[in-house]
Amino acid sequence: MTKDKDDSKKSGQKKLSDHECDGCKINSNKQNPYNELISLGKSVVQDINKGKNPKIEMSVRGLSNVFYDKEAKTLALGDKTAQRFFFNVAHTKKFLQTIEVASICKNLLDSMKHASLRDVFYMAKRTIPNTKINIVDDQKETDKAIEDLEIITDFSRECLHVNANKMGSVAGKVIVEDSGDTIDWSKLGSGGWSIPSNVEEIKFKKVEAKYVVYMEKAAVWERLHEDRFWNKQNCIIMSSQGQTTRGIRRLLQRLSVEHKLPIYILTDGDPWGWYIYSVIKYGSISLAHMAGEMAIPTVRFLGITCDDIVNYDLKRHFIKLTEQDISRMKQMQAYEWFVKNKDWQRQFKMMKEFNAKVEIQALSSKGISFISEKYLPEKIRKQDFLD
Amino acid sequence: MTKDKDDSKKSGQKKLSDHECDGCKINSNKQNPYNELISLGKSVVQDINKGKNPKIEMSVRGLSNVFYDKEAKTLALGDKTAQRFFFNVAHTKKFLQTIEVASICKNLLDSMKHASLRDVFYMAKRTIPNTKINIVDDQKETDKAIEDLEIITDFSRECLHVNANKMGSVAGKVIVEDSGDTIDWSKLGSGGWSIPSNVEEIKFKKVEAKYVVYMEKAAVWERLHEDRFWNKQNCIIMSSQGQTTRGIRRLLQRLSVEHKLPIYILTDGDPWGWYIYSVIKYGSISLAHMAGEMAIPTVRFLGITCDDIVNYDLKRHFIKLTEQDISRMKQMQAYEWFVKNKDWQRQFKMMKEFNAKVEIQALSSKGISFISEKYLPEKIRKQDFLD
Repeated sequence: MTKDKDDSKKSGQKKLSDHECDGCKINSNKQNPYNELISLGKSVVQDINKGKNPKIEMSVRGLSNVFYDKEAKTLALGDKTAQRFFFNVAHTKKFLQTIEVASICKNLLDSMKHASLRDVFYMAKRTIPNTKINIVDDQKETDKAIEDLEIITDFSRECLHVNANKMGSVAGKVIVEDSGDTIDWSKLGSGGWSIPSNVEEIKFKKVEAKYVVYMEKAAVWERLHEDRFWNKQNCIIMSSQGQTTRGIRRLLQRLSVEHKLPIYILTDGDPWGWYIYSVIKYGSISLAHMAGEMAIPTVRFLGITCDDIVNYDLKRHFIKLTEQDISRMKQMQAYEWFVKNKDWQRQFKMMKEFNAKVEIQALSSKGISFISEKYLPEKIRKQDFLD
Repeated sequence: MTKDKDDSKKSGQKKLSDHECDGCKINSNKQNPYNELISLGKSVVQDINKGKNPKIEMSVRGLSNVFYDKEAKTLALGDKTAQRFFFNVAHTKKFLQTIEVASICKNLLDSMKHASLRDVFYMAKRTIPNTKINIVDDQKETDKAIEDLEIITDFSRECLHVNANKMGSVAGKVIVEDSGDTIDWSKLGSGGWSIPSNVEEIKFKKVEAKYVVYMEKAAVWERLHEDRFWNKQNCIIMSSQGQTTRGIRRLLQRLSVEHKLPIYILTDGDPWGWYIYSVIKYGSISLAHMAGEMAIPTVRFLGITCDDIVNYDLKRHFIKLTEQDISRMKQMQAYEWFVKNKDWQRQFKMMKEFNAKVEIQALSSKGISFISEKYLPEKIRKQDFLD
């Protein structure tokens, strides 16, 4: 044990001085994810040495401890805490899993390498010595352990060197430094920069752009990119394809917090597009403990709104709402942050009356570059956003 | 009509001399997609002027006209042709749709802009003047029309400026020129270059890398990238997340044809991973007419094979085959190109005996960088590939 502790300490010191991760620094009250993991280990060892039942203490996750923080304007975790004991049949496996994953993360930080969630599962999937019992049988178990460690250490899993999937592209007048390279987002041809799953260690060297448009659809990004929209408007264009990954959300948040750039969300005119906006702005229940790093209360919704459907004559591209659309919309209508928001309630009402949604590409019926030459410049000039 | 023809001619000449698209040049016997569209229009106009029933002639698509070309070692279209007449109630709507989409493509080429498949749908979705009938009601109709135009013009839809979805990242010692920018794939930080949906206009300026590893999973790409695998091995690493887009397949094909780079496919050890390999190598039925541009007969399968499962002791990470897995495997086993391939038949047999598959990330159980430090270098050194 002593040997292990000394090793950790040495590496810990090395990491402490080496820890140049801009993303981590800004978002946590703690100094260093490595030291937090060491503290966790030490407290367990102390319990053992004192002959106490080893325990881990952490905030309760889940609906019962999630509330809407009106001041921060995001979802957040309440102050309910729970204790997990090693000598408790209901806790012992989870206890073991948390410690195992903490040790994997410590090794990742030590070796300065990053793993995917799936990697971590396979790294933890081994039998307990002298038994036939696996430490984990399912990725859900390691995923949960990682979320627990986010709460325990107050660092995101990205800071613990665990990444989710990589997705999305970005272009605009920004120069970053990353992994020893200097990358100019305005000089990357038709492809743009491929957004990494983990953006914590990126350094912004020069940010000329004045705002960010984040869009859900890669095809719309390619349209705006081909039209050099980011150049004409001096902005950043960013997109995923499908889900808004944590890498993208953190990149948006860093641009918002560190460079005070306004962020505008561009989606289909449907409940799912609006939901994307809601999650980026207010956070989600499952990630409430990460709201400080993930939610971006300042983002605004650019479109497609129901007013856009009227003003830009898109009714002839109506697609009837499905049952899923309607139930998603009802859910949102009742969200605490939307319930007193007259503008959004008006949108929900209009869409319900339409009983229809509109895709963003419907704008192409007006001309291939209508979106970049008329719709967006007009909306942005008029500051026609929803909050 | 005359005015229009003159305009086209003028633009056509402009395009002809401007047409610097490396991808198009190499893959079609024809010279210029623009001129092919003009020819189509002219032949219809000639029919009208002669008082004939306007017709479009093209190869038949679909299973009845698809065969395995043993010489080219890809799927290909046979020589059955069909005629589509304007004055035929069964043909007239499709005729109109083909001409409408041809005109949209001509305008895209004229304006040097690219559209997504969805954009083209919305651009074509309008009522026929003085009627309440839409030219198209569903994207399937414009998608079909675009495939027809691929056959009629002998140019891919990318050459006709219609793009699919964008996905994937690339890194390696390659310098390309694209949209006026010079991009060094080895200097793009942890993100890499985001692969555009359309890679026809990319120019390869310098290709130092000696081979390409294409992997299905972005998380594996990030692993290899962090380990600078492409630098140590002097190769290119490329990945999508999910499907292998046409942009990726064309990029692989251009590196194979224009730069003679060997291409190795790295997937999960399961029937779906193997199917990815089959489609990249031999093409697919739905894209048989594009085999010349899409299929890459020289690609080889790197892993995960059933032998890898044995040799690298991965059996403890077995996941039971599902019914879908088994039926996909049976289908492949019967493919003309696999049926006489002893090595592959052996793989199918082994997996059937295992009644289990293994994910590529199972390699992480041996250490986070086992894949880049041992598995891949060993396999590549021994040239342990399947053909």
